[in-house]
Amino acid sequence: MSLRKLLVDVHTHLYLPRYASVLRSRSNAPRILTRNSPSGQSEDRLLILDDEPSGGRPVGPQYWDRDEKLKFMDQHGIDISFVSSANPWLDFLPFPEAQELAQQLNADLESYCSGGPSVVSAVELKRLYGFGLLPLVPGAPSEALSEAVSQLARQHPHIRGIIISTQGVGEGLDDPALEPLWASLAETGLVVFLHPHYGVSAQAWGTRDNGHVLPLALGFPFETTTAITRLILAGVLDRHPNLRLLLAHSGGALPQLSSRLASCIEHDPVLAGRLAHDARWYLGRMWFDAVAYGAAELGFVSETVGRASGCGQGGGTADVRRGRKEGASRMLFGTDHPFFPPLGEAGKWRSVVENLEAIERVDQWSEEDKEGVRGRNALTLFGLSP
Amino acid sequence: MSLRKLLVDVHTHLYLPRYASVLRSRSNAPRILTRNSPSGQSEDRLLILDDEPSGGRPVGPQYWDRDEKLKFMDQHGIDISFVSSANPWLDFLPFPEAQELAQQLNADLESYCSGGPSVVSAVELKRLYGFGLLPLVPGAPSEALSEAVSQLARQHPHIRGIIISTQGVGEGLDDPALEPLWASLAETGLVVFLHPHYGVSAQAWGTRDNGHVLPLALGFPFETTTAITRLILAGVLDRHPNLRLLLAHSGGALPQLSSRLASCIEHDPVLAGRLAHDARWYLGRMWFDAVAYGAAELGFVSETVGRASGCGQGGGTADVRRGRKEGASRMLFGTDHPFFPPLGEAGKWRSVVENLEAIERVDQWSEEDKEGVRGRNALTLFGLSP
Repeated sequence: MSLRKLLVDVHTHLYLPRYASVLRSRSNAPRILTRNSPSGQSEDRLLILDDEPSGGRPVGPQYWDRDEKLKFMDQHGIDISFVSSANPWLDFLPFPEAQELAQQLNADLESYCSGGPSVVSAVELKRLYGFGLLPLVPGAPSEALSEAVSQLARQHPHIRGIIISTQGVGEGLDDPALEPLWASLAETGLVVFLHPHYGVSAQAWGTRDNGHVLPLALGFPFETTTAITRLILAGVLDRHPNLRLLLAHSGGALPQLSSRLASCIEHDPVLAGRLAHDARWYLGRMWFDAVAYGAAELGFVSETVGRASGCGQGGGTADVRRGRKEGASRMLFGTDHPFFPPLGEAGKWRSVVENLEAIERVDQWSEEDKEGVRGRNALTLFGLSP
Repeated sequence: MSLRKLLVDVHTHLYLPRYASVLRSRSNAPRILTRNSPSGQSEDRLLILDDEPSGGRPVGPQYWDRDEKLKFMDQHGIDISFVSSANPWLDFLPFPEAQELAQQLNADLESYCSGGPSVVSAVELKRLYGFGLLPLVPGAPSEALSEAVSQLARQHPHIRGIIISTQGVGEGLDDPALEPLWASLAETGLVVFLHPHYGVSAQAWGTRDNGHVLPLALGFPFETTTAITRLILAGVLDRHPNLRLLLAHSGGALPQLSSRLASCIEHDPVLAGRLAHDARWYLGRMWFDAVAYGAAELGFVSETVGRASGCGQGGGTADVRRGRKEGASRMLFGTDHPFFPPLGEAGKWRSVVENLEAIERVDQWSEEDKEGVRGRNALTLFGLSP
């Protein structure tokens, strides 16, 4: 099999056993608790928030067992996975504890990846790589964060990026205190996977029982969209052009709101002239997972990336047909495993099949573009291309 | 000029003089106050929220003077405007006051429209039509709302719809108390223009001064997206298939999140099976203004509408090329006047030019589709086609 045919999953989560133990030891969210299911059987439940709808969700070996991850990969033809800790990471811990646990979990993750199998058709590649953790919590000193970044890059060859939430050290990603962190990340080339957890204030969801749908389907993308917009407005991407940001869930709502954002900036006395570029330009500097479950969505996201470079000078008139190849080159297949398991008995997971079918059906993409999204783009981004 | 060439603006606001007087009489937001500008001149400012960024925004005759509206229309080649009160409507008033003021303002609006000029090339059409107001506030009895709807439809021929916020009578649009209202609206055929005002909780925006950009560019579309999603999840569109909903700002983020929404519903034990259709199907039942400032955005929204009918049976595999004409037929030009005025001296407003250029540049649309979006679709929707 040629490298260009590999299927690579960049959005797949785990709770390492050490982390799951921490969750089990806790008496408030985030926690894992054991309860009796309605049918009387003992079951583990994951509560991410104290007011978790539906009493949380089932959790089991698919979250921590490497063999389960590999079985899922085999079942869906996934050659390589870039695994990342699932939310809420270390966000709830005080700094010293987060710092120590981050180091331990990164070492655990390195073993998880390096001790796993290689790709049969490309033995120089492992099947598992990872996104590490930083102690990015309130009270974290800048120097400690920069040191954690360079340590990660030096010590753990199978960790090719970090996963972070939108909170920074408590004030969000537009916090000036994070400037040294962005500089360190840009210097190492580690990919920064920006992933939601907090959503928006739950009062938006009303009082009907809609399960997890509103916070997951809307709150998550709203959060990502807000965080990356605040990052753009703060000039972080102007000052750190080499920062490599990968946005979860195809960038949330950012692509659809990007021209509105550009227009609002141009018409606001406070913002007009602050940034070096039209707001849409920055979309061309980021990477987007292809976790959107629809072909029209994927094609559209890649169009907003493709038009980005033409938005430097008068974005409104940029030709959307330009740069489609460039757009496709910044999108990367993902599954969101082990979330969204099938409700009934099933072979392949519908959530995965939908994402693969969506890639297959994007009108604007050539077969080569699709191969890129399925795997080649990830190998390039993470420095694993031959 | 043939009717098919008319340019029709469905998203253009006003504060009727009676309403502006109410705002001037108030000592807390929403209010209009007079202050000295930095250059020492007296200026009127509109404060919509108590914690309004940048001390509110300038307000003047462009908000209440019909001649100013017509001048703006002439300047941009707009033949017909469907004017609507700007936010926050009557939301802040107790019911009896809201009820009385709604009746008065609807009569004012009818005069505003009927007393204005006709279209020169089509004298059977006026240049101004309107969206009326309902006393849709906490404490409003269902019967009073239904009566207000039928009164509006009976008494005011130039009022062709209503504009509403996302709050309903205080519990949002998925409130069972609104069932009779939806039934009345569906029966009269009045178009329901759903428009944001509240955004999401401001803690999402952080502490940097970003002017109005985050609440306007993100908060507004997030709010619309949430409201319409809750409406869908509550089954309102299943029970009232003839309800005619027009979504502000091209539906906010709903199109980009619609496949994610469908996937989250299918994977949630609480929601799976509740609705009659795949979540994406409902997009084909609504109308969207074309206020998105970009061609890629408009083309994408129309694709999500066009694919909707194919999403009834296994949405993930719907062919996005189907129904492009249907998609374009549900999109309608708008300006958002008098918001987003040019910051400097200018002739035509950039915000308007961008929306017109965006329509012109949508790859997927034929010239006939574009004429529809610029005017014919609105005449059809509002029952003004010959």
